[in-house]
Amino acid sequence: MKIAKTVAELKTCLEAIGKDKTIGFVPTMGYLHDGHLALIKAAHAENDVTVLSIFVNPTQFAPGEDLDAYPRDFDRDSQLAKAAGTDLLFFPDPTEIYPTGASTFVEVDGEITKKLCGQSRPTHFKGVTTVVNILFNLIYPTRAYFGQKDAQQVAVIKKMVRDLHLPVQIIVCPIVREADGLAMSSRNVLLNPEERNQALVLSQSLASAGALYQAGEGSVKFLKDKIVSQISSMPLTCIDYVDILDFETLESIESIASPALAAVAVRFEKTRLLDNIILD
Amino acid sequence: MKIAKTVAELKTCLEAIGKDKTIGFVPTMGYLHDGHLALIKAAHAENDVTVLSIFVNPTQFAPGEDLDAYPRDFDRDSQLAKAAGTDLLFFPDPTEIYPTGASTFVEVDGEITKKLCGQSRPTHFKGVTTVVNILFNLIYPTRAYFGQKDAQQVAVIKKMVRDLHLPVQIIVCPIVREADGLAMSSRNVLLNPEERNQALVLSQSLASAGALYQAGEGSVKFLKDKIVSQISSMPLTCIDYVDILDFETLESIESIASPALAAVAVRFEKTRLLDNIILD
Repeated sequence: MKIAKTVAELKTCLEAIGKDKTIGFVPTMGYLHDGHLALIKAAHAENDVTVLSIFVNPTQFAPGEDLDAYPRDFDRDSQLAKAAGTDLLFFPDPTEIYPTGASTFVEVDGEITKKLCGQSRPTHFKGVTTVVNILFNLIYPTRAYFGQKDAQQVAVIKKMVRDLHLPVQIIVCPIVREADGLAMSSRNVLLNPEERNQALVLSQSLASAGALYQAGEGSVKFLKDKIVSQISSMPLTCIDYVDILDFETLESIESIASPALAAVAVRFEKTRLLDNIILD
Repeated sequence: MKIAKTVAELKTCLEAIGKDKTIGFVPTMGYLHDGHLALIKAAHAENDVTVLSIFVNPTQFAPGEDLDAYPRDFDRDSQLAKAAGTDLLFFPDPTEIYPTGASTFVEVDGEITKKLCGQSRPTHFKGVTTVVNILFNLIYPTRAYFGQKDAQQVAVIKKMVRDLHLPVQIIVCPIVREADGLAMSSRNVLLNPEERNQALVLSQSLASAGALYQAGEGSVKFLKDKIVSQISSMPLTCIDYVDILDFETLESIESIASPALAAVAVRFEKTRLLDNIILD
């Protein structure tokens, strides 16, 4: 596995690979877990070359968010990345991605970035779409792999790719969960034992809603209320949002006809966790 | 010369060309003049394949600007394009470039887009950078060719390319002028004979400032005042701006040390013209 820490090193590596190979690209912020490794394995299975980026992107964190606290362990990550089939690992400094005076942004406008995480993190997706666009420009992947855990990010990036005619196929892989159901996240390590225990309510409340939906319950309000009351029963939780939206457009719905996304964001003291389920 | 009117046709043509060829790309709004043809000839000389786009981009016109009045003549353009060495002409409808519901924008923030044309056309460069980004994504050119006549556009696009790490080289070609000095522009055809005559004051006032600079005058205020008074002597002119800025950053300067850009925008009744000169 090659490691490139600068844009110049990355370009040298990509030139050596040549233009005829298919490239599967997995952009991450590192501190890899089995969810990331599933993306790397999928990229490895479907492409000639697998490129992984590890970059804790400062522009998607607002002041006061957990940029500094975000967990990092490059040595562990590079071993896991290599074992999962990564051919080229791009691990740049922020100054490599954002040259001095950089002030160009890629922004997906509209409800799709204003709902869910966009409510409490209004500048977040502008940072995500900008950095993903930059990484696509640098790596020119055939396919890029994202986890369904970040459902809104997936919807926003798909829209950016469509609107800007980016020549890349977006592949979405299912949420990978711990044995007890907690959705894997690099931030899970920041939970204390009691928070870790209560965090199970995210996946449990979504599974309950899924069971009610499968049993015939189609009212968005009813299902949302059920999820809210189940999460609120855990005293360390603070709900950021609970919502059920059209799966593709993230538009509001009153009852579930086509596939819908039930998504939650819940804060513990220092840690904000996401989970979701597709109701189909 | 192939003509592609849809994204699908464009992709078919580009696939036939293959990935190993260098592509020189000339984005235009059509109604081609010798300035455009110089860009096409430069692209033809320096690349395996020359791609020209003709697209009057609606997102760079604000309501009330001259989108509808912008001159168009596809048959004439396609003959000129072919004769100048175009291999592939992309002539899409707006719906091909902007799919239904498109709401993703590429924006260069900061003074560089707020000065000069950015003052009277505050949404213009957002439209320009978005469409140029889309065209780069569709065509993936090795080099893209722009005219120095649109000096601020050149500076903004260079900054976008740098900030977003776009894999394209920006080539800037000198202003091409009519025999009497008027900078070539598709909008010149919209001038009536008296306006056409008075429009000569743009190039004349810039040439006068250039001569003063070469004779040792380095005061930006003095040179600007000279240009303003010369243009204002023509009764049909209405100055949009006259400015002298750092050539690369478009930052304000008081005296000329490194290369500077002297740029003017002047309105006649229905037509707004640009011209500039590099003071070096």
